[in-house]
Amino acid sequence: VTGPGRDGLFAALFDRGAVGTGDEAWLQAMLDTEAALARALERAGLAAEGSGARVTSVASVSFFSNESLSGLAAATGNPVPALVRLLTGLVPEAAEAVHRGATSQDIIDTAAMLIAARVIDAVLADLAVAADHAAAMAELHAGTVMAGRTLLQQAVPVTFGLVAAGWLTSIGEARAGLRAIRSRRLAVQFGGAAGTLAALGEAGPTVAALLADELGLTVPVLPWHTDRLRIIELAAALAGTCAVLGKIARDVTLLTQTEVAEVSEDLADGERGGSSAMPHKQNPVASVVMLGCAKRAPGLLATLAATAEQEHQRAAGAWHAEWETLSDLLRLTGSTAAWATDLLSGLHIHPTKMRANLEATHGLPLAENVARLLIPALGRLPAQALITHASKRAIANDISLKDAILTHPPTAAKLAAAKVSPAQLESALDPHSYLGATAEFIHRALTAHAERETR
Amino acid sequence: VTGPGRDGLFAALFDRGAVGTGDEAWLQAMLDTEAALARALERAGLAAEGSGARVTSVASVSFFSNESLSGLAAATGNPVPALVRLLTGLVPEAAEAVHRGATSQDIIDTAAMLIAARVIDAVLADLAVAADHAAAMAELHAGTVMAGRTLLQQAVPVTFGLVAAGWLTSIGEARAGLRAIRSRRLAVQFGGAAGTLAALGEAGPTVAALLADELGLTVPVLPWHTDRLRIIELAAALAGTCAVLGKIARDVTLLTQTEVAEVSEDLADGERGGSSAMPHKQNPVASVVMLGCAKRAPGLLATLAATAEQEHQRAAGAWHAEWETLSDLLRLTGSTAAWATDLLSGLHIHPTKMRANLEATHGLPLAENVARLLIPALGRLPAQALITHASKRAIANDISLKDAILTHPPTAAKLAAAKVSPAQLESALDPHSYLGATAEFIHRALTAHAERETR
Amino acid sequence: VTGPGRDGLFAALFDRGAVGTGDEAWLQAMLDTEAALARALERAGLAAEGSGARVTSVASVSFFSNESLSGLAAATGNPVPALVRLLTGLVPEAAEAVHRGATSQDIIDTAAMLIAARVIDAVLADLAVAADHAAAMAELHAGTVMAGRTLLQQAVPVTFGLVAAGWLTSIGEARAGLRAIRSRRLAVQFGGAAGTLAALGEAGPTVAALLADELGLTVPVLPWHTDRLRIIELAAALAGTCAVLGKIARDVTLLTQTEVAEVSEDLADGERGGSSAMPHKQNPVASVVMLGCAKRAPGLLATLAATAEQEHQRAAGAWHAEWETLSDLLRLTGSTAAWATDLLSGLHIHPTKMRANLEATHGLPLAENVARLLIPALGRLPAQALITHASKRAIANDISLKDAILTHPPTAAKLAAAKVSPAQLESALDPHSYLGATAEFIHRALTAHAERETR
Amino acid sequence: VTGPGRDGLFAALFDRGAVGTGDEAWLQAMLDTEAALARALERAGLAAEGSGARVTSVASVSFFSNESLSGLAAATGNPVPALVRLLTGLVPEAAEAVHRGATSQDIIDTAAMLIAARVIDAVLADLAVAADHAAAMAELHAGTVMAGRTLLQQAVPVTFGLVAAGWLTSIGEARAGLRAIRSRRLAVQFGGAAGTLAALGEAGPTVAALLADELGLTVPVLPWHTDRLRIIELAAALAGTCAVLGKIARDVTLLTQTEVAEVSEDLADGERGGSSAMPHKQNPVASVVMLGCAKRAPGLLATLAATAEQEHQRAAGAWHAEWETLSDLLRLTGSTAAWATDLLSGLHIHPTKMRANLEATHGLPLAENVARLLIPALGRLPAQALITHASKRAIANDISLKDAILTHPPTAAKLAAAKVSPAQLESALDPHSYLGATAEFIHRALTAHAERETR
Repeated sequence: VTGPGRDGLFAALFDRGAVGTGDEAWLQAMLDTEAALARALERAGLAAEGSGARVTSVASVSFFSNESLSGLAAATGNPVPALVRLLTGLVPEAAEAVHRGATSQDIIDTAAMLIAARVIDAVLADLAVAADHAAAMAELHAGTVMAGRTLLQQAVPVTFGLVAAGWLTSIGEARAGLRAIRSRRLAVQFGGAAGTLAALGEAGPTVAALLADELGLTVPVLPWHTDRLRIIELAAALAGTCAVLGKIARDVTLLTQTEVAEVSEDLADGERGGSSAMPHKQNPVASVVMLGCAKRAPGLLATLAATAEQEHQRAAGAWHAEWETLSDLLRLTGSTAAWATDLLSGLHIHPTKMRANLEATHGLPLAENVARLLIPALGRLPAQALITHASKRAIANDISLKDAILTHPPTAAKLAAAKVSPAQLESALDPHSYLGATAEFIHRALTAHAERETR
Repeated sequence: VTGPGRDGLFAALFDRGAVGTGDEAWLQAMLDTEAALARALERAGLAAEGSGARVTSVASVSFFSNESLSGLAAATGNPVPALVRLLTGLVPEAAEAVHRGATSQDIIDTAAMLIAARVIDAVLADLAVAADHAAAMAELHAGTVMAGRTLLQQAVPVTFGLVAAGWLTSIGEARAGLRAIRSRRLAVQFGGAAGTLAALGEAGPTVAALLADELGLTVPVLPWHTDRLRIIELAAALAGTCAVLGKIARDVTLLTQTEVAEVSEDLADGERGGSSAMPHKQNPVASVVMLGCAKRAPGLLATLAATAEQEHQRAAGAWHAEWETLSDLLRLTGSTAAWATDLLSGLHIHPTKMRANLEATHGLPLAENVARLLIPALGRLPAQALITHASKRAIANDISLKDAILTHPPTAAKLAAAKVSPAQLESALDPHSYLGATAEFIHRALTAHAERETR
Repeated sequence: VTGPGRDGLFAALFDRGAVGTGDEAWLQAMLDTEAALARALERAGLAAEGSGARVTSVASVSFFSNESLSGLAAATGNPVPALVRLLTGLVPEAAEAVHRGATSQDIIDTAAMLIAARVIDAVLADLAVAADHAAAMAELHAGTVMAGRTLLQQAVPVTFGLVAAGWLTSIGEARAGLRAIRSRRLAVQFGGAAGTLAALGEAGPTVAALLADELGLTVPVLPWHTDRLRIIELAAALAGTCAVLGKIARDVTLLTQTEVAEVSEDLADGERGGSSAMPHKQNPVASVVMLGCAKRAPGLLATLAATAEQEHQRAAGAWHAEWETLSDLLRLTGSTAAWATDLLSGLHIHPTKMRANLEATHGLPLAENVARLLIPALGRLPAQALITHASKRAIANDISLKDAILTHPPTAAKLAAAKVSPAQLESALDPHSYLGATAEFIHRALTAHAERETR
Repeated sequence: VTGPGRDGLFAALFDRGAVGTGDEAWLQAMLDTEAALARALERAGLAAEGSGARVTSVASVSFFSNESLSGLAAATGNPVPALVRLLTGLVPEAAEAVHRGATSQDIIDTAAMLIAARVIDAVLADLAVAADHAAAMAELHAGTVMAGRTLLQQAVPVTFGLVAAGWLTSIGEARAGLRAIRSRRLAVQFGGAAGTLAALGEAGPTVAALLADELGLTVPVLPWHTDRLRIIELAAALAGTCAVLGKIARDVTLLTQTEVAEVSEDLADGERGGSSAMPHKQNPVASVVMLGCAKRAPGLLATLAATAEQEHQRAAGAWHAEWETLSDLLRLTGSTAAWATDLLSGLHIHPTKMRANLEATHGLPLAENVARLLIPALGRLPAQALITHASKRAIANDISLKDAILTHPPTAAKLAAAKVSPAQLESALDPHSYLGATAEFIHRALTAHAERETR
């Protein structure tokens, strides 16, 4: 058995997470579930002593092949009946401990939860690294001024530290969401043919609890065969993680634009970022591929939300549509997170260019601050209108905002009447004078990060 | 101002929740935010005494018209600048308390959180009623046997109480998700032009906290202008609620099929369920319209997950795409929940038909139970194979499973060899003998429901 | 190189089409494109004689490995630069004919079009078979009455032939859509670094046309590197095909329900349809798996529509998100179509059960027809109201509609006053008397099918 | 009746198309359908002379109110039964011509087709204007050089005319798609209760054809009540149009960035583009709102693809989910197209800034062209490698590519050995020397546009 994807043509791009989600991962997780069930049955006194260990000893992908399972899967609509037959054949002496009380959905759903747990653990590890890098940048660049940009236009000054603090905060929220799912919503599925565990008589709930214990999953109130809310919640936490990382990647692609050039990816001394056509290209590979992964999450999430409409005690198709979809979403989240650690660990910051871009428009990003000087005398809307006109003159004549104010007699007169001195105007045009709560916000983000780490 | 949708052509179907999400709701929520900001500024000592009350006194939709706001919105890409101008004009004496420190996004995002809070409260109230009805049915019909169905085929017996317990459990999970969002993730958005609150100098965070206090929203670590994870989480909780209710509606539409007829909707003495063409029709209107609402949630959720990729400090379009999308998702969730209380409060259960359908296949749903009798003697897979063949004979010859076993000498011989008596066989064919953990599961669901209520 | 998916765990379910879409298919299609480019360059006089054949001779997956390509892909964000290096290394004497004038996107996009062409051809072949089976059923069962069902309730009579004619018509429409895409929209992509083909000087358009000729693709007006409308159109034709087949599968799952049992899948003498738990199960595997495939199409389509927003001359991420998504959609369409031929070739029809289900409600599906008798005398709405009341009495008292009319003196009196005889009533209650245009519609569907075949 | 949306809070942004899609549009289209049916029945000899005109005379929204219809809709799950009752009440003398032979779905689906036809006509008119503006820019700026950009990095030179030609071509493709749907796929839906038209006896198909004729819609092979492929195809054409326009808007938002500033929107002398906080802001409102509309299309398209899985002869919910979803998609497409004419009619182009941006990197975008000079002597990959190293030196030392080549003895020596003169190098560094097929491509796009117009 080899896992499709892990060595595939696009695997280094889209399957970069530490944990696989392909055929090998699925098959092993299904075998882990069957083995844990055998051990649970033994612990419940429903299987002979040693049968749990016996089944466990052969529950490895190395004893099985996809080909044989897949061919048989076509006959039943899923690979479990074939797996049970092969597994039983390997341990005839422990046959009664194999799959007892279970139905195919129990095995597939529980296996999906195991894979999810493994991927989430790997993603959380990557996000912890990414968050630490973001935190370090937030601290180091707390005072590195740059243009804040709204609707892709320069707005007012911010600092790169605040940008990094924003990334840090969103990564922290994504981690919290994943942790909540990991600890509370990854539950064993064990209900038997139709959710009554009838084949185990009275012992069903006991075996279910032991199975959950064996696998490190939680025990649900009821078997959840056609209550797929936890799948939606899991998918939403994954898609949310992709979205948070996609926003970071989007910022990086914009900040690395040739004309902006405020940050750049680490291209490993030119080993990375080349083109098949253009010799000069230094493409931001990590952020581009992160976007290539993250942009696929919403469609996959929609599928998993739509397929939650499942009939009676087992869905005709909606359940089957979940398997590969959830795998893909787990894989892409893992890959995005792995790329994110790569991106953030090596991001180069260019404060000089940040300052130069901010100053290229000669004071316009401080227009709001200048208007503030006039509000006490003129009122807010009139003060804004006055500076709006000055800004338009500055743009039209390609002069500085300061000159557009001071060399325009009516405006200069209003400034004087409002008792705003040229020195006050000058000061208002200094980006450092107009950062508001930037420092406090960075502090809050770092504190929240530190608290999250020590929890 | 009249709210589109609330009196619209399809409003009784798709806008049935207690709380509106249309223009009127949006405009009032934006005004509520501006008024709360004025009060917060006053409390922070940044606006004259009484200015908060003054602004609040005119912050009502009755003073504004959509038409004027909408026309002006085209010039700025959102209705807030026009709203600020009109509002300021109504309270010239308190002009300095209007919109101070804020940007358009602060008002629109915070208004969205207010609408979300109001809708969620209404949905939670409806879900509480729906859950109580489900709980009552779970208790009353704990022993009402019916066919469990997998892949739309009869599987093994369950009880209708267990079905209702499943509905109850999923509604409970949806409520937990909504409550978590309501209490932890509906945060005020207040960051000013680019998230630094620079226009308020040092006072920004204080005003933000007071604003949150005024509105009953939480204070985020940072302004979340381009960190949209909470929008995704909110959307996922809403879509999850739709999914849970959609599954119930799907079950009801299937159980009300003419040929199944195990439940029926309350049609208010024929006031409901008619057709424009067919005199005899008694359509299950509530469950059908629930599906009509719920099926739209996944696409809306996908949009909100995709639009979370927002540039820099304010997105160029991705933000704008959220407004109506979130409104629609809130509206449809509210409508689905309202229909759900309607559906579950009046659902008619037909135990006789349930029993008849279960017995129509002459014992087949008990085939697994019969096979269990033979496992000690034959082993699991051979026992299953024997009964599989008997089942096929029963179907082919249209005889009962019992007859297919007892009148087939080789099978009857194996039964005898395994020391399974005809009485044991008879007993295994009684649905009540094969309900496994049904009673315990119902008990667990009811207990979880009771605990949720007393929390 | 082995293609992930083709021998995978779930491949027999979700990768059942005749043509692969995995790594092997991608790699071969990229090599086919590079080889065709070498031949085109030679034909244009831009490469030495024989170099096209030389490159073609090594352009086979057997000379390459995914692993080496994937590892290098991580450095450039796509596997083409590595492929070009390896390919060039294999034919040093024809190096100048390799990749000349092209950029990575040219190779990947053109390869995607080749894969699409190959999959569509296979799907069209499967749909032709499926359509023939549907046509045969439409003809054979043109007069086999069954209940038409609206909102899952029995409505008025139809025939199974009409149902099959509906399936046939929609398959025909899907084929027309695929053929239009296949012949008109699968275009070569060849634009060089930024869509100007500058590296080929004046010769660019000539080489592009020769490349299209070599590959059997069309020549676009312009290189379409960031005009992705044809991707959306292709995806929509695929998703539309899935939708059409999904509707058929949904009908089959409903008609095979234990309680309905009007059709059944061919289960190959019990080789198919079994369960891991229940000996009696005969699951409709083909229709269930078809739904499992088809339900994933809308989310994939949404991704491909969203990623069409591509920046400037090559997108940063949106393009990358297309590759696997389009592959999956092609694969799932291929698989759904393959399952559809399987399903329709062996579908068992049960006319007796159809008739029995229709008659089980004792005339109600003919209520509209009975009302028609009274319209001349009473008017449409009053006639409907009268029969609505009779229908309710029939349901409430479990009597036939006929008795509910004739044994209710006021209704019987109205009938008499309208000069409707009991014989006329009896006749109106015969399903065959109320099939309207059924025969003509079936004829139209068969005619359209025959015309499609001879075109 | 007032149409929600048309005068709503966000209407000027998201409901800007010439044709409404709200309640008023729906109600009028339903009335148009009922009136056309009355006329068709009269033409078929099934209704008294004059009854068509009589029904038509009252089939106006001014005679009806949403409120009454909506309230009644809750009882039947759609507003048609109530509409039929009210309409019949207005024309008692022509009662027999009202709704005869029809079912609710016939009226709603046909009304949806009418609305679609009206919106598409308006969109086509807007796109014709937008295309003309793009064509004018393509022609005027055919030689205006600017940087082509891939992955948001400067790549090789293009011209703005080529960019505009790309926009033109994609608009042309979107128009072709919409026209094909408009003329071939907008079909009348008329099937009666379950698609047999049984209530009209033999006359059904004749009435259907007359109805189509009255409404200017096509006649389908069969009633398409649960064959929703045409809805998917319509939705895909709309979403494709949004995608094409969204790509243009994305380009404009990027080109208007403060640091790029190569184009700017027409802000109507400052009447447009302002901010509620920042006096200097000149936001690109049209392109931002276009993105705000276009980004919602994929989710709506996914819903309409998913809801195509419709049961039997009328879907339980999937059909209902289409109504508002299709309305929204039509509305947003109309709005995007209206904004597009606005955007393209007033777009300001800044050739000087384009040239300055291209030259800011001192020759790097011509690196590929320089490498071409060396290919004959060195071979393609070695030539590329040499210039890659020179490009890295240029970036690292902030010198021009020319200097990085000529002042680096080993590189200069290779140049000399290859007999590339400094004058040839100089010439290769001129953007105009490396435009390849740009002029021809622009010509092709303009020709295709001209042909489209004269067709």
